Amino acid sequence: MAETTGLDTPRVACVGAGNIGRSWAIAYAAGGAEVRLFDVSAAAVARALEFIDATADDLVAAGRLRSKELLLERIRGAGTVAAAVDGVQHIQESVSDDPAVKRRVFAELDALTPTSITIGSSAGEAPVSKFTEGLPGAGRCLLVHPVNPPHILRAVEICPTPWTERWAVLACKQLVESIGMVPIMLTREISGYAINRLQYALLGEALHLVGEGYCEPKDIDAAIKHGLGLRWAFLGPFETSHLNATQGYQEYMLTDEAGARRLMADVRAGYQWDHALIARIHDYLIQTMKSEDIVQHQQQRDRRLLGLMQHLQADTSAGVALDGQEAKSTRGVP
Amino acid sequence: MAETTGLDTPRVACVGAGNIGRSWAIAYAAGGAEVRLFDVSAAAVARALEFIDATADDLVAAGRLRSKELLLERIRGAGTVAAAVDGVQHIQESVSDDPAVKRRVFAELDALTPTSITIGSSAGEAPVSKFTEGLPGAGRCLLVHPVNPPHILRAVEICPTPWTERWAVLACKQLVESIGMVPIMLTREISGYAINRLQYALLGEALHLVGEGYCEPKDIDAAIKHGLGLRWAFLGPFETSHLNATQGYQEYMLTDEAGARRLMADVRAGYQWDHALIARIHDYLIQTMKSEDIVQHQQQRDRRLLGLMQHLQADTSAGVALDGQEAKSTRGVP
Repeated sequence: MAETTGLDTPRVACVGAGNIGRSWAIAYAAGGAEVRLFDVSAAAVARALEFIDATADDLVAAGRLRSKELLLERIRGAGTVAAAVDGVQHIQESVSDDPAVKRRVFAELDALTPTSITIGSSAGEAPVSKFTEGLPGAGRCLLVHPVNPPHILRAVEICPTPWTERWAVLACKQLVESIGMVPIMLTREISGYAINRLQYALLGEALHLVGEGYCEPKDIDAAIKHGLGLRWAFLGPFETSHLNATQGYQEYMLTDEAGARRLMADVRAGYQWDHALIARIHDYLIQTMKSEDIVQHQQQRDRRLLGLMQHLQADTSAGVALDGQEAKSTRGVP
Repeated sequence: MAETTGLDTPRVACVGAGNIGRSWAIAYAAGGAEVRLFDVSAAAVARALEFIDATADDLVAAGRLRSKELLLERIRGAGTVAAAVDGVQHIQESVSDDPAVKRRVFAELDALTPTSITIGSSAGEAPVSKFTEGLPGAGRCLLVHPVNPPHILRAVEICPTPWTERWAVLACKQLVESIGMVPIMLTREISGYAINRLQYALLGEALHLVGEGYCEPKDIDAAIKHGLGLRWAFLGPFETSHLNATQGYQEYMLTDEAGARRLMADVRAGYQWDHALIARIHDYLIQTMKSEDIVQHQQQRDRRLLGLMQHLQADTSAGVALDGQEAKSTRGVP
């Protein structure tokens, strides 16, 4: 590989080859990095490489990749974790969300590699400090958390633990930007960070509304995909509010300030749902997306996401760039 | 107009010609209804008719309308509220959110019209029962609440008060479906209903994250428009969760049930924000969308929404219809 790798080509190890790990491998490689993919299960690596092979065609079709071969050349399975991390500048951890497993993996990665290498965790809820405390190299460990699937969606939240060193945060920010993704910078840890807190605020209130019989599960999904979600595909929630009043955000929030406060205080994201409610929502979902077809529906979701993002990027109807999406080119594939 | 109006052509009065009222007028007319538009301010009606004229071209370009002329023929300004409501089957109220104003308007509409006419309120937060209690015709009053802008987005929540009669709910559901929109059916009132509860759950947690210094306003917007919002443009939140696990929703919710519960309980949508925080977010927003350009940015938003929905409807990459969006034709314009 040496002859195709420039001095400034990032080298990244993806540890964990499940849904998120394999998708990260594509994201890094499509962004120009050399990637080594490892999993304790060799079969998982093999399955991930098959997925990557199958997915590359969709990425090329959507204009996100110049060539399938280039991507496949850049991603190699590794037989041992030591082989995976040898010579890399960043390790992207995407193993089980079980904190005990994460702690064991971080301890191993920390022992194996020089402390100049950053180790980013894909943990979605648990603070990274919970499984890096006390490690000799804890200063280079931090959160680097994507939205599923990271080979398509561009948001990545980056968050230091209390002992993460500043250089490590900056190195990860630069790496994420260099592969064409959008860093969401958090200043300090909080359970669920920003992305999952925003998502779970909505999911929790949705469970409240259905659990207390205000509406059916399908009504929640329809309210988002035929309503709120279409604006949020290209405007953030603050931007959306800003355009809901002729004078902008302050007018939107303060014209009926008491009403806004009352409504926010009344939200019950922490509603205590039971397993029967989860089963009921599951039963509704499998009417259109059967459990045995999930993989096929994930593939459909991914193709629709690629098409949607391609559309938004090409759409010049807005004239002025609302949000910088238009200004960005597709991911930099050399 | 009689010669162009079939026996089953719905006739609707839109009372209030602000942002929502004018947009409702387009939604009803584009869906095939004859519309009378009234506002206590004649100037507001004139401005609304100008907006409708200007907007019709975008709708035709997006394939949502067969002809501009047909739309303009179907919407007439009315000089008095009595003229507006004469002969209609449904009144869509979109006046100020001030409950005292709504109460006065409902009392007037109730006194003016036979009780066989439904009166739907566009109220977003206050329960409709607050301003219809005790009216002789309270049984035909209910919530018919859209997402802004209703001439583009299809979700409409419908909710009875404790005294709304069942026929009125069914009539509004049928009317909303007949104009190609998607009814979100609520069984009973709750502050903010479904759509704004879901939105404000997210907005409240966003204020918490920024207010407590976890991240900057731009990070919230980026987390949605480069992450969560793109999935929500064609998948509801339950559907999104279903595809985040190989076995579906139950696996997604129960694999780390404790983590999910902890995160939902930790959401702070009721965070007590102050005016300085609102001003700070406003200052961030006007860097890219100045107050004096809001109208232009709203127009850009609307064009992007039209293009986005046109793209999603035409997109056959998913093969199987995920959510029924593909199965629906554009709004039925005869």
